[in-house]
Amino acid sequence: MTQYKVPVIPGDGIGPEIVAEGMKVIDAAGEKFGFDVDWIEYPHGADHYLETGELISEDTLKELSNYSAIYLGSIGDPRVAPGVLEKGILLAARFYFDQYVNLRPIKLLEGVWTPLKDKTPKDIDFTVVRENTEDFYIGIGGRSKKGTSKEMLEVSRSLYSAKFDLDIETDSEEIAYQIGMISKEGTRRVIEYAFDLAEKRDKHVASVDKANVLSDIYGFWREEFEDVAATHPDVETDFNYVDAITMWFVKNPDWFDVVVTPNMFGDIITDLGAMIQGGLGLAPGGNINPEGTSMFEPIHGSAPKYKGQNKVNPIATIWAGSMLIDQLGETEAGASIVSAIEQNIIENNVKTYDMGGSSKTSDVGDDIARIILEE
Amino acid sequence: MTQYKVPVIPGDGIGPEIVAEGMKVIDAAGEKFGFDVDWIEYPHGADHYLETGELISEDTLKELSNYSAIYLGSIGDPRVAPGVLEKGILLAARFYFDQYVNLRPIKLLEGVWTPLKDKTPKDIDFTVVRENTEDFYIGIGGRSKKGTSKEMLEVSRSLYSAKFDLDIETDSEEIAYQIGMISKEGTRRVIEYAFDLAEKRDKHVASVDKANVLSDIYGFWREEFEDVAATHPDVETDFNYVDAITMWFVKNPDWFDVVVTPNMFGDIITDLGAMIQGGLGLAPGGNINPEGTSMFEPIHGSAPKYKGQNKVNPIATIWAGSMLIDQLGETEAGASIVSAIEQNIIENNVKTYDMGGSSKTSDVGDDIARIILEE
Ligand SMILES: CC(C)[C@H](C(=O)O)[C@@H](O)C(=O)O
Ligand SMILES: CC(C)[C@H](C(=O)O)[C@@H](O)C(=O)O
Repeated sequence: MTQYKVPVIPGDGIGPEIVAEGMKVIDAAGEKFGFDVDWIEYPHGADHYLETGELISEDTLKELSNYSAIYLGSIGDPRVAPGVLEKGILLAARFYFDQYVNLRPIKLLEGVWTPLKDKTPKDIDFTVVRENTEDFYIGIGGRSKKGTSKEMLEVSRSLYSAKFDLDIETDSEEIAYQIGMISKEGTRRVIEYAFDLAEKRDKHVASVDKANVLSDIYGFWREEFEDVAATHPDVETDFNYVDAITMWFVKNPDWFDVVVTPNMFGDIITDLGAMIQGGLGLAPGGNINPEGTSMFEPIHGSAPKYKGQNKVNPIATIWAGSMLIDQLGETEAGASIVSAIEQNIIENNVKTYDMGGSSKTSDVGDDIARIILEE
Repeated sequence: MTQYKVPVIPGDGIGPEIVAEGMKVIDAAGEKFGFDVDWIEYPHGADHYLETGELISEDTLKELSNYSAIYLGSIGDPRVAPGVLEKGILLAARFYFDQYVNLRPIKLLEGVWTPLKDKTPKDIDFTVVRENTEDFYIGIGGRSKKGTSKEMLEVSRSLYSAKFDLDIETDSEEIAYQIGMISKEGTRRVIEYAFDLAEKRDKHVASVDKANVLSDIYGFWREEFEDVAATHPDVETDFNYVDAITMWFVKNPDWFDVVVTPNMFGDIITDLGAMIQGGLGLAPGGNINPEGTSMFEPIHGSAPKYKGQNKVNPIATIWAGSMLIDQLGETEAGASIVSAIEQNIIENNVKTYDMGGSSKTSDVGDDIARIILEE
C-alpha cells in the first residue's frame, strides 16, 4: 500500500468543514485504489495570526517543502485588514515554493446550472494556465508625497504628449504607483507547461495579453509565446486581448482548450470562468511547481458568515483534492473523484444552497465517498 | 435654430459606414428638436497613416480642441502593428484632451438577446465610469537585457521572501516591466463624477480594485474613494475586487447602478458589460472632459472583413451619437434617439447579423431616423 504524507491547512471560516469532506473523499479513494494518506494538520490562518502574530514562518515553510502537495482550505477573516492574510500566507506560499502554474479547470459538470444560455457541458470544458509568481503580483509599488511626484507625473503624461506643447500643473499632486515584472524564464516555463498540456488535450493554446496598451510587459510575453509556439508546430494558437476574452468566455466558451495568461489577468478571467462553470462552489485550483511543492485549494474565500452551518458546497475542495492526488501520481483515483462528484449531482440531484438547494456539506462528502467505494 | 459644429473621424474598416448612420440619425433629431449640426470631417486612421506617416498632429489636436465633442468611428487595421493606431490616435486624443471619464452605459434594450439566463432589461441597467488617463495606460515600461536585471528581479522576489533564506538564480534572465500610476487629483475627479451621476440615478456607487494584492496603487484608490464617499452620505457604496465583479456582472447585474473603476480594470469589465447587453454592436462609449473636448465612439473595432457590406450593426455608433448630443446640451434629443433605437428593435424586429438576423446597416439608420421624425 502506497503511503503519502500530506500537510493540510484548513484555514479560516468554512475552511475546516470543506477540507474535512475533501479528506473523507480522498481517504475513500485511497481505500478503493490502494493508497493511504497520512494527514498532517497546520493551524495557519486568522486565529493563529491573531493569537501569535505569526502568518507563516520560514521554519514552517521549510518543513512544508519536504512534501509534494499541500491541501488548503480557505484563508480570510473580517477581523484582519484586506491583503494581510492573503499576502502573508497564500501568496507567501505561492512565491516561496515557486508554484509558477495556477491551474484552473473550467468545466461545466453534467447536472450543474450555468448562468449562460444555450450552453451545455460539451461547450464549457477548458483549462486556464495562469502564471502565478510574477507580473503585477510581485508587490513593488509606492507613493510619492505632495510635491515630490512632479517628475514622475510629467514623465508619464509626456509619453502621449511629449511632442505636444501641453501645460500640465502637477505641483500639488500625490501619486501612487505599482510595478509589474515578468522574466524570460518565468514566462517561458508557464507557456511551455500550457503547450505540454495542450498536446494531451485538443492541441489549441490561446494566449491572453493587452499588448496594444501595456506593450512593454505584454509585448515581451507575446514574443516568448511565439518562440515556444514555434517548437509545437502541431498546436494551434491565437492571441486574445484580455478585454475581448471576457466576452468570448460568455459567448463562445467552446473556442477554448488551454488558455495561458499572465498572473493578474488570470486572476480576473478565472473568476469569470468559475461563474460560467456554475459558481465558486464548484471551482478548484492548483498552485503547481512540477518539481517541488504544490498546493491545492478551492478558489473561493472563507465565507465566515456560513461557518459551522454545514450548508456550504464542498465540491470545489473535493475537486481540488482530486487534482492533489493526481499530482501525487494517483491519476486513476483522481479521475474517479471527478466522476463521482458528477454522478452524485446527477443521480442524487445534489444541490447545496449556492446551487439553489439545501443539501448538507457533510452529506455531499459522504455520498461522493460512497459512490467511489461502490463503483 | 441652434447651430453646432462637430468634427467627425470616420476612421478605418466599417467606421465610415456606421458613422454615416449616426450622422443621419443626429440630423433627424436636429430637424425634430430644432438644432443643426455642421459636420467637419477628418481623415485620420490607417490609410492616412500609411499614406502620410502621420497619426494625428499637434496642429490637428489644437484645432479639434475648439470643439466640445468629436464623433469617432473606429480605428484599427491589420496592415499596422497592434498598438500603433490605438496609441497614436485614440489614446493620444484621450490624453491630449484630458478626457478623464470613459462613460459606458450597460443597458439591455427591450427586444435584445442577452447571453445570460433569466435576465431582462430591468436587471441590466447600470453605468460604468472608467478612469481614462492614468493607471497602467500611462505607457511607462521597459526591458532589461540579459544580466542587467539581476537587481530588479531580486528586489521583486524578495518582497515575499526577504525574511526567508531563498537562493534565487537570476544571472541569465531578461525581464520586462510596466508601471502604473494614479494621482490624487486624477482619482478624485473621476470618483466625484461617479458620485454626481449616482445622485441623479439610484444613489449607489460600486468601486472596483484589487487592493488585496496591488495594494500600493489601489490602496490609494480606496482611500480617495472613501474620502469622496464621505461627502455623499446619501449614496450607498461598496468595494469589489475586480476578479469578483466579473462574476457579479454575470450573476447579479441588477446589483449595480454606477460602477467606478481604474482604467485597466475598466477596459476589461466594460467589454464583459458590452457582452451582457447584447454584444459589441450595441455598446457605446464616451470619452469625456466635462470642461473640454469630449469624444464619442462605439466601443467595437473596425471589423475590416465586413467593410462595405452594409451588414454591420450601427446601433453602438448611433447610441454614441445620442451621448454626444446629450453632452452638447440636447438632452431631450439624446433621449429620443435611445428610445427610437429601442422602438425600432421591438416594432420592426431589427436584427443585424451580429444579432442573428440580416437587417442592413443603412436600413437601421433610416428606420431610426424616421421614427424620431414621426414620433
Ligand atoms: C485571495 C487572492 C490573493 C487570490 C489572488 O488574487 O490570486 C485569489 O483571488 C485567487 O485567485 O487565488
Ligand atoms: C483599442 C484600445 C486601446 C482601447 C482601450 O484599451 O482602452 C479599447 O479597448 C477601449 O476599451 O476603448
